[in-house]
Amino acid sequence: MRIVLDAMGSDKFPQPDLEGGLLAAREYGVDITFVGDEAVLQPALAALDTTGLKFEVVHAPEMLTMEDKGMALALKAKRKNARNSMAVGIDLVKSGQAQAFVTAGNTGAAAATAYFRLGTLPGIDRPALAPAFPTRHGTCVVLDVGANPDVKPENLLQFAIMGSLYAERVRRVSRPRVGLLSNGEEAGKGNQLVRGAYPLLAASGLNFIGNVEGKELLGGEADVVVTDGFTGNIMLKTAEAVAKMITEVMREKIMTASPLVKLGGALVRPALRSLRQLLDPSEEGAAPLLGINGLIFIGHGRSDALAIKNAIRVARQAAEAGVVASIRDAMAQAPA
Amino acid sequence: MRIVLDAMGSDKFPQPDLEGGLLAAREYGVDITFVGDEAVLQPALAALDTTGLKFEVVHAPEMLTMEDKGMALALKAKRKNARNSMAVGIDLVKSGQAQAFVTAGNTGAAAATAYFRLGTLPGIDRPALAPAFPTRHGTCVVLDVGANPDVKPENLLQFAIMGSLYAERVRRVSRPRVGLLSNGEEAGKGNQLVRGAYPLLAASGLNFIGNVEGKELLGGEADVVVTDGFTGNIMLKTAEAVAKMITEVMREKIMTASPLVKLGGALVRPALRSLRQLLDPSEEGAAPLLGINGLIFIGHGRSDALAIKNAIRVARQAAEAGVVASIRDAMAQAPA
Repeated sequence: MRIVLDAMGSDKFPQPDLEGGLLAAREYGVDITFVGDEAVLQPALAALDTTGLKFEVVHAPEMLTMEDKGMALALKAKRKNARNSMAVGIDLVKSGQAQAFVTAGNTGAAAATAYFRLGTLPGIDRPALAPAFPTRHGTCVVLDVGANPDVKPENLLQFAIMGSLYAERVRRVSRPRVGLLSNGEEAGKGNQLVRGAYPLLAASGLNFIGNVEGKELLGGEADVVVTDGFTGNIMLKTAEAVAKMITEVMREKIMTASPLVKLGGALVRPALRSLRQLLDPSEEGAAPLLGINGLIFIGHGRSDALAIKNAIRVARQAAEAGVVASIRDAMAQAPA
Repeated sequence: MRIVLDAMGSDKFPQPDLEGGLLAAREYGVDITFVGDEAVLQPALAALDTTGLKFEVVHAPEMLTMEDKGMALALKAKRKNARNSMAVGIDLVKSGQAQAFVTAGNTGAAAATAYFRLGTLPGIDRPALAPAFPTRHGTCVVLDVGANPDVKPENLLQFAIMGSLYAERVRRVSRPRVGLLSNGEEAGKGNQLVRGAYPLLAASGLNFIGNVEGKELLGGEADVVVTDGFTGNIMLKTAEAVAKMITEVMREKIMTASPLVKLGGALVRPALRSLRQLLDPSEEGAAPLLGINGLIFIGHGRSDALAIKNAIRVARQAAEAGVVASIRDAMAQAPA
């Protein structure tokens, strides 16, 4: 098992990326290939303890950043002899030298590079970014959260098939419950897209539970929730912003109150640590870009070493579970 | 100033509706007209202290419920001699006998009844439900959150004009900052709808600050945020669900922990009461349905007397500020 890590990915690269990769090599016994500028990576690696760890460095002198977008990005993503770390890393997956590619870099750049270099699986028109969303009782796979702002009902059906397989194979959920994100639970609620997708999902043979709203999603009533990338992205970011606002306002209120309230704050803190973990995206590390002909995981730019390590863990699970092959098989059997 | 209250609106009608109406009559000196089934209202009113309060009861023997939807609802909303409390109440606004109508009943039923009986203002194609969303520094008017799941860029421009006027006149914000909800801050981000609306807003003469995400919205960077009713509804409900989940999990974790942690919980509780208020929709009471030729406020079904009282307060402010006339004037001056 070899996993390629974009060592130029996170906001504070290469430190969190390298440390996370080495942690994963130590803990999970996977072989790691770091891709990036050797002039940056070698000195940083020299300062770390790498005794007994299996890793290699592949030189990629360029990198894609948040500035890369639109047509210019598409050209960089496509170029045959691209020398940026994402393209070089993804080519290692394409040639079969590695089983998955992990990056904490620009999501759009990673998605475009994966799309142009690996392509989508037969029957999949668009890939979908599928993170695990925290719920009352664990997590729920939500897709798409950003790869496609405008989709058709058939795309949501494809997302549902992929998300369901991912939940089953990687997250070990049997007969995953698939919900359709809508502005009301009853059938018939929704925008044109949702009303068009509903009958396709109902006829799909998946364990479709109908429309869901934020309440049901967070209540853990679905294992997979499908939506367009625009709505999914807004939902995800709103949830993060609300959680952040609540915890910040709470801290503020406690810290500016009487000494007795501060004491109370100190007493409850340990009990609330696990709440923080519940809301912390670094637990999952990264989200798969499903539908691509190869395993791609994309993490937050603000990933730390722990998040990178967790991303590699999830990528390894997905590789072992044969996610790409199972989506290919499912689409081959699906009615056109 | 006379305000009509649907006394059959809230989930626990008529108690919260009547009590809230009487509280408002006492506190704000407004005349209240309760609309509903006299056989239900009169005994309930007889049990309450109404000394010195100005109110009247208008009989409406029928009511619209959550079961009323689709074509059947449209017919009930349109019918000339409709006898349900929403239609009777809204007709009092139409005839000029009252300045605003407030209900905690079915949102779709209220919106349809208002639309068919009062119509929209010239230049407004679709009304928009515009609640105040809590932020770090107060609130932000978000519209639409449910009246229109599918809209066009021009509708978002109309929402922006209405929301901006509402923020200015009722919420006393000068030159309200108007944001466009999107899946990224940069211009060019968004789905087709958002990318189409962006240039219209930029050329509108409004104080347009560009695309905003959940972070900016909750950070209080905009006074008005426009979006389609599908996305807005999902954002609103996700935010509510996240806030509820966090506070519930927190309570659970504290209550199942050691006595010392429980003591800490008791000590911080008073400091966190104001956080609860921040997240409590009853503070605002109800949201205006802007764009209708008359003032309509729609509140949560779970409104209590306090929420009903606050809804009447906001409705009175909007009536005093001449919101309907100012939207009419603005649309008459807007380029077609």
